Amino acid sequence: MFGLIGKMRAVPGQRDALIAILLESTTQMPGCLSYIVAKDEADVDAIWVTEVWDSEDSHRASLSLPQVQAAIARARPMITGFDSHIRTAPVGGVGLGG
Amino acid sequence: MFGLIGKMRAVPGQRDALIAILLESTTQMPGCLSYIVAKDEADVDAIWVTEVWDSEDSHRASLSLPQVQAAIARARPMITGFDSHIRTAPVGGVGLGG
Repeated sequence: MFGLIGKMRAVPGQRDALIAILLESTTQMPGCLSYIVAKDEADVDAIWVTEVWDSEDSHRASLSLPQVQAAIARARPMITGFDSHIRTAPVGGVGLGG
Repeated sequence: MFGLIGKMRAVPGQRDALIAILLESTTQMPGCLSYIVAKDEADVDAIWVTEVWDSEDSHRASLSLPQVQAAIARARPMITGFDSHIRTAPVGGVGLGG
């Protein structure tokens, strides 16, 4: 499996709108076993996205999906930066049904 | 929902054994919607655990479960430290069925 743990920063005041775009566009992605969007509790502009894919190829392919391409275009102006981008190799756990 | 993103370091050479303990002891935890154990790709001693609970109370209660208490005791000598301990408020996504 292939995993990502990422922290992005929203334009102040736009975190909720950015989260909505992320959630709308990330269903029905082939090979996606887990994709969780969360607010950082301490930092009001920060969003954490933790992902697990059956393979890195599936993740790469998802970036070409029409709904993901559209979401990236809509979200880009709302993002001021990416603080963390951690690559992982998930081994197992709860909630990997996709 | 309540979430945690944590990075722990294993005693060199004991990451796999530590991961096995984490995976064995973290099934059947009431209120656990996601609990994913992953290897850091770049750091051979590092483990990431990303968690989502229906509430912080459920997470706190899980620490008293017999299997979790036993796992903590077994795992402690294999852990050299905790690099990250991030509290999040998960909003939604894929793989939150528990």
